Amino acid sequence: MAQTIKVGIVGYGNLGKGVEAAITQNPDMELVAVFTRRMPESLKVQHQQASVLHMDEADKWQDKIDVMILCGGSATDLPIQAPALAARFNVVDSYDTHAKIPEHFANVDRVATVNGKTAAISIGWDPGLFSMNRMLAGAILPQGSDYTFWGRGVSQGHSDAIRRVNGVVKGVQYTIPIQEAIDRVRRGENPTLATREKHLRDCYIVADEKVNKEEIVQEIKTMPNYFDEYETRVTFISEEEFVQQHNQMPHGGFVIRSGQTGLAGEHNQMIEFSLKLESNPEFTSSVLVAYARAVYRLNNEGQVGAKTVFDIPLAYLSTQTSAELRRDLL
Amino acid sequence: MAQTIKVGIVGYGNLGKGVEAAITQNPDMELVAVFTRRMPESLKVQHQQASVLHMDEADKWQDKIDVMILCGGSATDLPIQAPALAARFNVVDSYDTHAKIPEHFANVDRVATVNGKTAAISIGWDPGLFSMNRMLAGAILPQGSDYTFWGRGVSQGHSDAIRRVNGVVKGVQYTIPIQEAIDRVRRGENPTLATREKHLRDCYIVADEKVNKEEIVQEIKTMPNYFDEYETRVTFISEEEFVQQHNQMPHGGFVIRSGQTGLAGEHNQMIEFSLKLESNPEFTSSVLVAYARAVYRLNNEGQVGAKTVFDIPLAYLSTQTSAELRRDLL
Repeated sequence: MAQTIKVGIVGYGNLGKGVEAAITQNPDMELVAVFTRRMPESLKVQHQQASVLHMDEADKWQDKIDVMILCGGSATDLPIQAPALAARFNVVDSYDTHAKIPEHFANVDRVATVNGKTAAISIGWDPGLFSMNRMLAGAILPQGSDYTFWGRGVSQGHSDAIRRVNGVVKGVQYTIPIQEAIDRVRRGENPTLATREKHLRDCYIVADEKVNKEEIVQEIKTMPNYFDEYETRVTFISEEEFVQQHNQMPHGGFVIRSGQTGLAGEHNQMIEFSLKLESNPEFTSSVLVAYARAVYRLNNEGQVGAKTVFDIPLAYLSTQTSAELRRDLL
Repeated sequence: MAQTIKVGIVGYGNLGKGVEAAITQNPDMELVAVFTRRMPESLKVQHQQASVLHMDEADKWQDKIDVMILCGGSATDLPIQAPALAARFNVVDSYDTHAKIPEHFANVDRVATVNGKTAAISIGWDPGLFSMNRMLAGAILPQGSDYTFWGRGVSQGHSDAIRRVNGVVKGVQYTIPIQEAIDRVRRGENPTLATREKHLRDCYIVADEKVNKEEIVQEIKTMPNYFDEYETRVTFISEEEFVQQHNQMPHGGFVIRSGQTGLAGEHNQMIEFSLKLESNPEFTSSVLVAYARAVYRLNNEGQVGAKTVFDIPLAYLSTQTSAELRRDLL
């Protein structure tokens, strides 16, 4: 094998730890450093040979790192970090605030292009693999309808929202796709589905004994934007049960396009892509690592600037050569 | 909209007719000519404005056609036609003899590159969309197992084989994936599956009254390569039932990767892509047409030679601009 791809991780939360684990499954890659805003001494990373450094040290590592994988959050970290780091590094991020992607793309593209760096933004599964499948299915079946269902899985935003309710000590919210709706789509009915017909919101809560549970339920179920348009279930459990049963981060979902072909649109055609994930952050991390390989190669070829899943040929993600891919996988 | 993409169809069987129908769903495309080995006068095409011409006339249309979509068979047509036409046209084909793809790619690539043309080969769903998903899922989850199931659908090769059996007047063979096997894969069991555990072969036959049916059944069930390794069902039906019930060409299948992530591989992750098609040829045609758009654009950018689904960025398949795709679909 040629030289390994030298990777840096920025941010060592669930996503950063997932990237670290994914690198061990990719022998063409090497983790050289983890950058953190915390005290570097306070971090215990699994890769013994990787350096742990404060974020402020990153610039000094410009010649030692081929790709930086940014593992911060979309709300405040990535909008600042991605353009800043793209001036000195090839980067991959999982920016997932859908409405602001065009702005984020423009900010990163400008810096990366000027500095001859390559940046893959909004990588993961949604945005990411789900986006690819929505786009691909729509291009193949122009006449048809798209359906995206999420879950069963933990929604971080909704879990945060219920934890802000008075009297909630611990709380988690699972988004559950409604099977009846999925079945109607799969049968080719092309239904028009209201928000509450697609997903159910299932909450598990450890409550403060002193607060009226009925009030907690009411406040959650009527919360605008988060819960008021959904059927919401609230279950109170003990702290012990919460810690034992709700410490995982499963997720997944379905992208379905139901289309029609033929001169009179007489044949139904169904394209479905689905994920069933036991660990949402580890899966997202695995996607980030595959795209880090692509970013490294694109940059070696002089393809600079910001890229998304729509722009990068799939062959760039694989350790196999194009000839091997044609022989073994086509 | 800018100028339309001018398309020619080579071969007017099920696939060619499917391409013609698909073009009507893509307003940026225009069917200008259909080329056939038959007497052009004998063909009745749906597009009134399209010319119908003998294959030998194709070369004269070099300046009038942006992309030729080759709708012949992989056994004898495409190995000759694709390299020949790639000298004068951008082409798309659905070459599907998996074992000979590297050779076909090399033959087409050589001619296309020298002549400044772009050729997308082995486009469709397998090879094609299934290949993309096998590759993508393997790159994301390096530790894991791949499973491809086909059906329920008509296998042309197996139907041809049973029609060669003495006493078979009409015959069709459906490949049926075995649900129990799919369920085991979906549960993350990572089973090792024997050939007969994955697919069932279901045959419907109109028999010559004078031939012993038991002999027909025996000959089919023991046919090497085609049936001997499978559980095979043979049902005799009337010619009337055959014509009424078995005149469709449904197909589909599943590509599943079951992988593990985490430092100890402790989390199961499942990626599944599936198709449920009422018309196999029309769906394949729809994929060919989307890739015709990509080939046209690649050639305009000077990206010449042979390409596969692994090489072409998805954005090239869409009528939307990259900025629109990022805004609407990412």
